[in-house]
Amino acid sequence: MRARAGPRLVTLTSDIGAAYAAQMKAVLVHRIPPGRVVDLAHDLRAHAIGEAAFLLRAMAIGFPPGTVHVAVVDPGVGGRRAPIAIDCADGSALVGPDNGVLIPLADALGQPIAYRIDPARLGARPRVGRTFDGRDLFAPAAARLAQGLRARALGPRIRAHRYAIPVARRRGAVASGEILHEDRFGNLITNVPTGWLPSDARSADVRLRGRPARRVPVVASYEALGRGRTGLLGSSFGTLEVAVARGVAARRWRAGVGDAVTVRWAPRTARTGNGK
Amino acid sequence: MRARAGPRLVTLTSDIGAAYAAQMKAVLVHRIPPGRVVDLAHDLRAHAIGEAAFLLRAMAIGFPPGTVHVAVVDPGVGGRRAPIAIDCADGSALVGPDNGVLIPLADALGQPIAYRIDPARLGARPRVGRTFDGRDLFAPAAARLAQGLRARALGPRIRAHRYAIPVARRRGAVASGEILHEDRFGNLITNVPTGWLPSDARSADVRLRGRPARRVPVVASYEALGRGRTGLLGSSFGTLEVAVARGVAARRWRAGVGDAVTVRWAPRTARTGNGK
Amino acid sequence: MRARAGPRLVTLTSDIGAAYAAQMKAVLVHRIPPGRVVDLAHDLRAHAIGEAAFLLRAMAIGFPPGTVHVAVVDPGVGGRRAPIAIDCADGSALVGPDNGVLIPLADALGQPIAYRIDPARLGARPRVGRTFDGRDLFAPAAARLAQGLRARALGPRIRAHRYAIPVARRRGAVASGEILHEDRFGNLITNVPTGWLPSDARSADVRLRGRPARRVPVVASYEALGRGRTGLLGSSFGTLEVAVARGVAARRWRAGVGDAVTVRWAPRTARTGNGK
Repeated sequence: MRARAGPRLVTLTSDIGAAYAAQMKAVLVHRIPPGRVVDLAHDLRAHAIGEAAFLLRAMAIGFPPGTVHVAVVDPGVGGRRAPIAIDCADGSALVGPDNGVLIPLADALGQPIAYRIDPARLGARPRVGRTFDGRDLFAPAAARLAQGLRARALGPRIRAHRYAIPVARRRGAVASGEILHEDRFGNLITNVPTGWLPSDARSADVRLRGRPARRVPVVASYEALGRGRTGLLGSSFGTLEVAVARGVAARRWRAGVGDAVTVRWAPRTARTGNGK
Repeated sequence: MRARAGPRLVTLTSDIGAAYAAQMKAVLVHRIPPGRVVDLAHDLRAHAIGEAAFLLRAMAIGFPPGTVHVAVVDPGVGGRRAPIAIDCADGSALVGPDNGVLIPLADALGQPIAYRIDPARLGARPRVGRTFDGRDLFAPAAARLAQGLRARALGPRIRAHRYAIPVARRRGAVASGEILHEDRFGNLITNVPTGWLPSDARSADVRLRGRPARRVPVVASYEALGRGRTGLLGSSFGTLEVAVARGVAARRWRAGVGDAVTVRWAPRTARTGNGK
Repeated sequence: MRARAGPRLVTLTSDIGAAYAAQMKAVLVHRIPPGRVVDLAHDLRAHAIGEAAFLLRAMAIGFPPGTVHVAVVDPGVGGRRAPIAIDCADGSALVGPDNGVLIPLADALGQPIAYRIDPARLGARPRVGRTFDGRDLFAPAAARLAQGLRARALGPRIRAHRYAIPVARRRGAVASGEILHEDRFGNLITNVPTGWLPSDARSADVRLRGRPARRVPVVASYEALGRGRTGLLGSSFGTLEVAVARGVAARRWRAGVGDAVTVRWAPRTARTGNGK
C-alpha cells in the first residue's frame, strides 16, 4: 500500500514542549528528510510516565510496521536510568529512557529486545549538559535507526525496567480501576474495558477517589447526555470514560490521573417487584 | 508552480489536542506520505463550532486547489449528526461532521456538494467507540480522497446543515456585529469589515456586551497605540479588531467570542464650532 | 549525508499560535512541498523578543547550512520597524522583523548582511491589514528564498537593529546574570555559563530578583535532587539553570524572564577550621 521509499518514519512524543522538541528535529534532519518526522504530542503532562506510556501506546500502535518511535518523558534524565533502544517483532524500534514509558508499546508490538544506547556509537557530538538526552542521545539514535541500523548496533543488550498499564479488576457487577488519562476536554479515561458493561446497561454507580457513589447514565455518545450532565461512555481507547457533555469532568468531579474509580452496573434494586 | 506529484495535501484542524490528532495521522500515513499532511491547529476552543468555522475558512482558503481539509470540532460525535465529505468547485474536498463547521469554507471554495460518509465504503476497520470519528471515519475518508477518490464515492448525497458566519449590520455611521474570534494574544476579532470605517477615522466609540461605549483610537498598527492602550484596527481577517497594545483585550474588556460589539465612528461632537 | 534535493528547508518560529501560523503555511505550500516546512515553536511567550531571540538561536543553530529560518515575534508589526531578510555565511537565510529577534542567530551563523524586504518584489498579493506580516510578507519572502533566491534580491541593504543576548558578568566567585528563559517545566534558564562553576562545587548561593540568597545544591541531574528540592545544574543551553525536581522553579521562586540572578560558589565560610 505504502511505498517504502527512503528512511523509516520517526515519531516524536514528549512532555518537553515545542522549543525543546525543535532541537531534536534539528538533529534528525541532518540524516532524514523532515517529511519523515511526525510530531505526535509534545504537551504531555510533565513527568507523568504512566500516562505517557498509555498515550504513546495508543498513538504509536497505529503506525506502519518499521516506524521508529521516540519518547521523551524523562524526569530521571542524566541520572542512573539508562538510555535505551528496543527492537520489536514488526521491525519497529523504540527509543527513550529506561523508565517504563516505552514498555507498554513495546509489549504491544511484540517480542521486544532492549539495548542500552552507548553514546560512543553515535559519533562525536559533545554533550552540553545532562538534562536533555532527547537531543543529545535519543535523536541521534533515532536518526540512525531510521537509516536502517538495528537497535542492537547501538549498545549492549539490557533488561529494561518493566512497566505495565494498571489493569482493572472485576468482581461480579463491579469493576475497580483507575483514571489513566485526562484528555484535552477534561474527560476522565479509565482502564475499565467498555466490554465489561452489559450492552443493555442504562446507568451505573460511579465512585471516584473513594467518594460516595453517584448514579450516572450510560450513553453511547456525548450528545445523548444533556449539556452539562455527567455520563459513562465507551472511550476511543476501548475503555470507559467519565464525561460531562460540553463540560469538564475532571473539574466537576475533582479527579485526575491515578485516582481510583469504581463502576457498579445493573445494581439489583432492593425491591424489584415484591411478588406479594 | 507546484509540482503535483503524488497524493493531494491533507490539512487537519481540530479542538481535540495533539494526542488525539496523532491517532488520525497514524491512519493517514498508511496511505499517504506524512509530508503531505499539514497540521493547521489542534488547540481550537473546545466545542466552539462557529469560531472553528471562521478559523477553518481563514486558514484553509489559502491552500492550493485540490487540497483535502479535515475538521474535527465535533461535540455531537456518535449522535445523530452525519459524517460528511464535500466536493468543491476547485477540486478541494472537505471532511468532518455535519454540524456546520465545514460550510463557510465550502461556500468560499464554491459549488459545494455534500455526501454522507458510509463507513462500509471505508473498509473493515472496526470502530472502537462512538467518541472519535476523527480517527475512525474522517481520517480514513481523507486518506482515500487524497489518493484520488471523489467525495461522491463515499456515500449518498445529502443536504448538509447550513451555517453562516454571522454578518455585521450597518446603519449610517454605526456597525453592529459580534466577536468571532479571540486570538492567542487576546485580541478580539469582530465581523465588522475594516472597509466600513472611513479611511480618515481617528477614533470610534466601541460598545462590548452592551456596556457603555468607550471612545478608542483607530490606528493602523499596534505600535501606534501606547503600550497598554486599547485601539481599533484592521485585523488580518479583513475585519476590525479590538486590541490592547502588548496587552490582552479579552481580559481588559471582559469579552469573548459571541459577544455583541457596536462601533460608531466619526461621531459629530455636540459643539463643533459654536458659530457665534 | 543529506541529499539536497529540491528547495531549502524552511523553519517557522513564532508567538502567534497555530491558527495564524497555518496561514503562513498556506502561503508556503504554493511554492515548496509541505514536507520542507518545519514548525519549531509557535507558543513562545507573547511579545518577548529577547527570549525568542535566545530560543531561536538555540533551536535553529542545529539545522543544516542553507536553511531558511522565519521568526514572527513582532509586536511592532505594521509600524516603523522594517521587514528584513538576512544572508549568512553558511548559506542560511533569516526572515522576520527588524526588532532584534533574528540577530543572535545571524551572528552565530556568521557574516550576516541584512536587506529590507520590498513588498513589490514579492508579487501582487494585496495586504489585508497591517497586523500580520508573517503571512503577508515573511512567508512569501521565505518561499522565494527556499526556491533559491538570495536575500539581496528582496530589497535594499539596510543596517539591522542590533540585539545581543545579555551576557553574565563574573567577579571572583560571583556571577551576575539574568533569567533568559522559563521552559515548559518552569525551570529558570540563566545566562551564567555552566563552565564558570568549579567542577567540584557542591553548593552555591543563589539570589533571584534581589531577594536574600539561598544556598542550593549543585547537581548533575534532576534525579540527584530530592523531589521538590531546588538545585542548580547545567542546562542544555550550556548555562546554569535553577530547577525544582519534578516541580516548578518559576512558581516556587516567583521569578521569570528578565529577573536578575546572582550565583556565588565555593563561599569561604567565616570559620573554616578556627584552629583551636
